[in-house]
Amino acid sequence: MPLQYNEYYNEKTGLTIGLKKLLYSKQTDYQLVEVYETDTWGNLMTIDGMVMLSERDEFVYHEMLSHVAMFTHPEPKRVLIIGGGDGGTAREVLKHPSVEWVDMVEIDEAVVEASQLHMPDVGDFENKKLNVLFEDGINFVKNVQNPYDVIIIDGSDPVGPAEGLFEKDFYQLCFDALGDDGVLTTQTESPWVESYHPSMKKVFGALEDIFEISKMYLSFIPLYPAGMWSMGFASKKYDPLSSDVNERIDAHKDILNTLKYYNKDIHTGSFALPNFVSEIIR
Amino acid sequence: MPLQYNEYYNEKTGLTIGLKKLLYSKQTDYQLVEVYETDTWGNLMTIDGMVMLSERDEFVYHEMLSHVAMFTHPEPKRVLIIGGGDGGTAREVLKHPSVEWVDMVEIDEAVVEASQLHMPDVGDFENKKLNVLFEDGINFVKNVQNPYDVIIIDGSDPVGPAEGLFEKDFYQLCFDALGDDGVLTTQTESPWVESYHPSMKKVFGALEDIFEISKMYLSFIPLYPAGMWSMGFASKKYDPLSSDVNERIDAHKDILNTLKYYNKDIHTGSFALPNFVSEIIR
Repeated sequence: MPLQYNEYYNEKTGLTIGLKKLLYSKQTDYQLVEVYETDTWGNLMTIDGMVMLSERDEFVYHEMLSHVAMFTHPEPKRVLIIGGGDGGTAREVLKHPSVEWVDMVEIDEAVVEASQLHMPDVGDFENKKLNVLFEDGINFVKNVQNPYDVIIIDGSDPVGPAEGLFEKDFYQLCFDALGDDGVLTTQTESPWVESYHPSMKKVFGALEDIFEISKMYLSFIPLYPAGMWSMGFASKKYDPLSSDVNERIDAHKDILNTLKYYNKDIHTGSFALPNFVSEIIR
Repeated sequence: MPLQYNEYYNEKTGLTIGLKKLLYSKQTDYQLVEVYETDTWGNLMTIDGMVMLSERDEFVYHEMLSHVAMFTHPEPKRVLIIGGGDGGTAREVLKHPSVEWVDMVEIDEAVVEASQLHMPDVGDFENKKLNVLFEDGINFVKNVQNPYDVIIIDGSDPVGPAEGLFEKDFYQLCFDALGDDGVLTTQTESPWVESYHPSMKKVFGALEDIFEISKMYLSFIPLYPAGMWSMGFASKKYDPLSSDVNERIDAHKDILNTLKYYNKDIHTGSFALPNFVSEIIR
């Protein structure tokens, strides 16, 4: 067992994390799911050797992927999460009082098991509004009968089982599975890692073609490559930068008080893109 | 010579960068200055083993440290840079047509030498408006006769020769060395690295006590610890978030067209702070 965890994202450039112990390791039909105890990041989940989340920094990713969508829609009742097996995105979604039902479609049961066993504070799996399904997310969206208000794509990197989550056909299926005023967010990799630029171009090109409104937004995630992480926002009707959204955020102090990253300024500020980032998807 | 460069900022957590060759190494009276050729970041300068800049990512730090101050002041003519020996901050400052004179006070001649030899595109040392002085920045600000419009503190981490740049007395000297409408920016470390929180609290406490307006802002710097980097803004008169500043940015397309990170949205968005960051300096 290694004493350090290394993830290289750019030839020899990468992140090193001090490990104390391997807590969980399962090779499933889809991928290798592992959890390590680390020196200062709490427990860390990796899939096929890539960092998914640590207990210490997961709040950034989960708050930003969920609340940007959930506050943009005025009354999200039905939410679909594709992936998200660690439970963190569902936990944030379920903080919104309008929510009546959340379907979380995770392909790999081991991700949920690893989170429940070794990251007990990440998920809110006992919540009665949460329905966890173990199946392929792409197949699932093909057969949606009752449309969703919000869809959140919380998949891993565009290699292995999550590869299809970066294809245009998939985003068309998501569009069709959303109601007439539906909102979608999706994780779209680090702008600093050139090998992911083709996937980013593909996703943002698709969102622009398919949806009325589409934008990229950014957040700081220390354990993801280069610390800068992009997410995609797409919407049939609502603009995330409208004054309505700002008023809605202000009206939910009860949710905001539980958060460590997201707030009204961050909601707006996260859509500001450095020039070199805009150029990637232009 | 190592094949990888490792900087640990949190027990065993840190960044690894692939190296090709050591290009420069000088132990001066102050510190060890080195430049490496890397795999994908261009040439990399380190001081006492800490990453200062790479040719590939230096634009973020230099654009954000300089333009936030330079666009907030309506007509910056006289600028003082404390540190900044690589020349990148002066390069950005000198893009502003109002600038008549820049004093750059770098304690260690080797930093300038290393940059000139191995990072020829970073500095603009031939510029006739740039006056480079090799002396202690703290002593220099004690004896300023002719006040500055903008002071930029571009020092290294709060260990070694840059330690005094995180003290309240130093910021009082800077206040005294600024004109009645002076503006200051300073680099203030990563909010994710707990060992730097005391220095951050000290600097922001000092700026709040001494200046009319003080704020933190953030940028994404991939080779700095955790990728999230904070900077301090302080001002006797001008608010960086006023509509005047926005109009001024719009009026300088000639400067904006040379930039890879900074733009009007980024100027405003960078002042949006995640909740956990605001709490560090509250």
